[in-house]
Amino acid sequence: MSDTATVRPLRAAEVTEWDLTADVVIAGYGIAGACAAIEAARAGADVLVLERTGGWGGAAALSGGYVYLGGGTGLQRALGFEDSPENMEKFLLAALGPGVDTAKIHDYCEGSVEHFDWLVEQGVPFKQEFWGEPGWEPPHDEGLMYSGGENAAPFNTIASPAPRGHLPQMQNKRTGLKGGGFMLMKPLSEVVESLGVRAEYDVRLQRLVVGDDDRVVGVAARRYGKPVLIRARRGVVLATGSFAYNEQMIENYAPRLIGRPGAAIEEHDGIGIRVAQALGADVAHMDATEVAFFGDPQLLARGILVNGRGQRYIAEDTYGGRIGQATLIQQENQAYLIIDEQSLEQGQGTETATPFFRQPPKWAAETVAELESDMGLPAGALQATVEVYNRHAADSADPLFGKKPQWVRPLGTPLAGFDLRGFTAGFTLGGLRTDLDSRVLHVSGEPIAGLYAAGRCTSGICAGGYVSGASLGDGSFYGRRAGIAAAANTAAAAPLMDSAAAPLIDSADQ
Amino acid sequence: MSDTATVRPLRAAEVTEWDLTADVVIAGYGIAGACAAIEAARAGADVLVLERTGGWGGAAALSGGYVYLGGGTGLQRALGFEDSPENMEKFLLAALGPGVDTAKIHDYCEGSVEHFDWLVEQGVPFKQEFWGEPGWEPPHDEGLMYSGGENAAPFNTIASPAPRGHLPQMQNKRTGLKGGGFMLMKPLSEVVESLGVRAEYDVRLQRLVVGDDDRVVGVAARRYGKPVLIRARRGVVLATGSFAYNEQMIENYAPRLIGRPGAAIEEHDGIGIRVAQALGADVAHMDATEVAFFGDPQLLARGILVNGRGQRYIAEDTYGGRIGQATLIQQENQAYLIIDEQSLEQGQGTETATPFFRQPPKWAAETVAELESDMGLPAGALQATVEVYNRHAADSADPLFGKKPQWVRPLGTPLAGFDLRGFTAGFTLGGLRTDLDSRVLHVSGEPIAGLYAAGRCTSGICAGGYVSGASLGDGSFYGRRAGIAAAANTAAAAPLMDSAAAPLIDSADQ
Repeated sequence: MSDTATVRPLRAAEVTEWDLTADVVIAGYGIAGACAAIEAARAGADVLVLERTGGWGGAAALSGGYVYLGGGTGLQRALGFEDSPENMEKFLLAALGPGVDTAKIHDYCEGSVEHFDWLVEQGVPFKQEFWGEPGWEPPHDEGLMYSGGENAAPFNTIASPAPRGHLPQMQNKRTGLKGGGFMLMKPLSEVVESLGVRAEYDVRLQRLVVGDDDRVVGVAARRYGKPVLIRARRGVVLATGSFAYNEQMIENYAPRLIGRPGAAIEEHDGIGIRVAQALGADVAHMDATEVAFFGDPQLLARGILVNGRGQRYIAEDTYGGRIGQATLIQQENQAYLIIDEQSLEQGQGTETATPFFRQPPKWAAETVAELESDMGLPAGALQATVEVYNRHAADSADPLFGKKPQWVRPLGTPLAGFDLRGFTAGFTLGGLRTDLDSRVLHVSGEPIAGLYAAGRCTSGICAGGYVSGASLGDGSFYGRRAGIAAAANTAAAAPLMDSAAAPLIDSADQ
Repeated sequence: MSDTATVRPLRAAEVTEWDLTADVVIAGYGIAGACAAIEAARAGADVLVLERTGGWGGAAALSGGYVYLGGGTGLQRALGFEDSPENMEKFLLAALGPGVDTAKIHDYCEGSVEHFDWLVEQGVPFKQEFWGEPGWEPPHDEGLMYSGGENAAPFNTIASPAPRGHLPQMQNKRTGLKGGGFMLMKPLSEVVESLGVRAEYDVRLQRLVVGDDDRVVGVAARRYGKPVLIRARRGVVLATGSFAYNEQMIENYAPRLIGRPGAAIEEHDGIGIRVAQALGADVAHMDATEVAFFGDPQLLARGILVNGRGQRYIAEDTYGGRIGQATLIQQENQAYLIIDEQSLEQGQGTETATPFFRQPPKWAAETVAELESDMGLPAGALQATVEVYNRHAADSADPLFGKKPQWVRPLGTPLAGFDLRGFTAGFTLGGLRTDLDSRVLHVSGEPIAGLYAAGRCTSGICAGGYVSGASLGDGSFYGRRAGIAAAANTAAAAPLMDSAAAPLIDSADQ
């Protein structure tokens, strides 16, 4: 069966024999799948996790490991940061919109402190140390960091800044073998195992199996090319990740990412979204994308970032993901960093400079006019930009974008120019529309019986914006909800091929 | 039944009696529905059009009437404009992307000349007169105009500029009673009637009716609150328009339009999209939107348009819809027009100034510095912008954006500032994914048997960009295709409640 095999549901009536059976069947053993498995097992369900690769982890294990949490978590408090669910909500509504699922954001903020405690209880280590410098990730094993521009304009005037990027304590940071994502997934997978959850590897989800009443009762999968039919007595949880590597879906839904997918693993082919859409599931914000920007935050904050016309377009000291989105979506992926020699040396001299972003400047010049000319920018354009910047920088002010005074200093000479055109890549944030219990919603607005989803195959707390940690955050948070809700769906454990089951289509509403 | 009634398909087995029957049933009597009806009837099908309002017309009849056509139409040739399908395709690929359906654009360009001839044959009048001034619409009854920035940067360097906005000859332009859209729909509706097509009004589509094999065999509708069941022997054509007025869908898919819907009629509630999604239909580019900008093109071309930071961001002489998209999506809906007194008088003095855009400037000042200060812009920001603009304008050049020399002149004094913040509104361009025969595609990639769609309930030739006339253009073009394909679907006219029909799910592909 090829990858283009049908994703249409298989009718249970066509199934003569199930290969495997469980109460709750979870497709995908990343962050959402692991958390769903733990909660479903704790609720007394017999749980089976299907994973298409050879082991647990998913994109989560290879990621940086940020979990976006706040509202006054134990870690925030221990490090002296004040936060509240209301303050967190105010920030997320501003940063992740427009069009966010406001109920989900409220719910997520309200539950965030408990969720942090839960992660700690599962054994996820968070070191009580804060890292406050601009950076891609903290340089060592620090546990808390700003990860969404909370302390940068315009958000620092909308909500009280609090760092919410919670990072599992890394080991062997230098080799990357035990990064934050691994240190998140490792203890979770151990808990999963300790709870007696079964896991089957090299099993690829192909289709959902539905009863006569359109209730989801299992999945059809492939293992080494052979069909495997798995019955789910109570429910199926989709936790299969984004569609960043499905070219057709990228073209249809999020074409700005054509040619620049940035998810951690290529297994993110959107299969979970497609099998549910085939049942009439609704989707949301399919165009939304995380966009990473591969410029060193230590240099960005100290210089000015200009577009293809030499104009500034963002506060350079904000979250890199916001710079990425602004560059790709609003500036045609054109970006140059202009920085003077003194700041360049300062920025590259800190131990916080991000090593893999090290590159030499493309241009060096004695004056702005010379640099402008060397870069091929229209005469006067960059000079005008620097003039306006320097005029206010003399007073440590940035009235155009509100960069924080600590980073604002008139640009001197000589100067360097970095060519950051095309320095973006991203993954998709859109997916299945789910409710607060992670039930997959039909386009009619009703939940699809027996079907749950969490993680990046769903549209979570993000609409257009992003903060680092939102994906592991809502994936783990709503993964747990999916596990709880699926395990509680005991009414579904009725005889399977009962064609007399009440039809879901209520003819009375005609 | 409320508007939130289920959109899940109704099983034909539950239908005891059909109220109406036809070979081809078309939902929606706008441009796509009318063209589908004509072609289906000409192909020998018995055709029934269902319209939820009290008469034919849809959004089309109330629109400006632009039909985007080219490649060397009779009208283009008569007015001395050279064009070719290849040239048109080059432009559309650049203007409507990224992520366009390249097969559809190629197909549309190849068929454009024939489609123009067809419209003329149906009696749509096009006056052989060209209007070459910047404008919202031509001031009189001219038949041809630039309507997508073809002759502006950057497109005038990508393809050879040719006007392709074909306008049905208006009558009583001043009162608007017989605008271009009306003059397009009137003859088409007359042809529909002359072909013996039946039309039923005040009938609202609610659900699709499907056979045991998931083939679409009819529709369930409501008329004055009572259910109406309509059987379609060969096929159902969805032609129900956009989802601009469905708040939930706007929030999920195109949140930048929250609070600023701009479709011609409020009936555009996305029902056609939802009933098909409930069958597993795929959608595409649901975030894409047309965005109108309510600034007078005659003034825009003569002045400079700046964002909330006093920076220019687009060639001011381009298509208004591009200005609208750039303003809403890339500039947070912040726009100001800066123009000197001389140009203001010139622009407002022409007969081409758009009367309903007339407004007094908000600010008037003797110098740029004074204007900048009055507008509350950061000191030096607007001055730097004008300085750079004027530096090159002295040579009639605009190296930043490529505005055409004829509109480039240094800004003098005194000056005026127009506050154009929030001057945008739009309609949605995303919708059902269809093939070149207007068959609705399932997420599996296969067509859904018996289901066709055209017009703004489909994702047509546009992905992210827009040109005026694309909607009536692809709506009429693929409306015809839908009618032809549905009428030809005679294999479907099998007995209806035949539960022994071969299941669409081929168990062999397990």
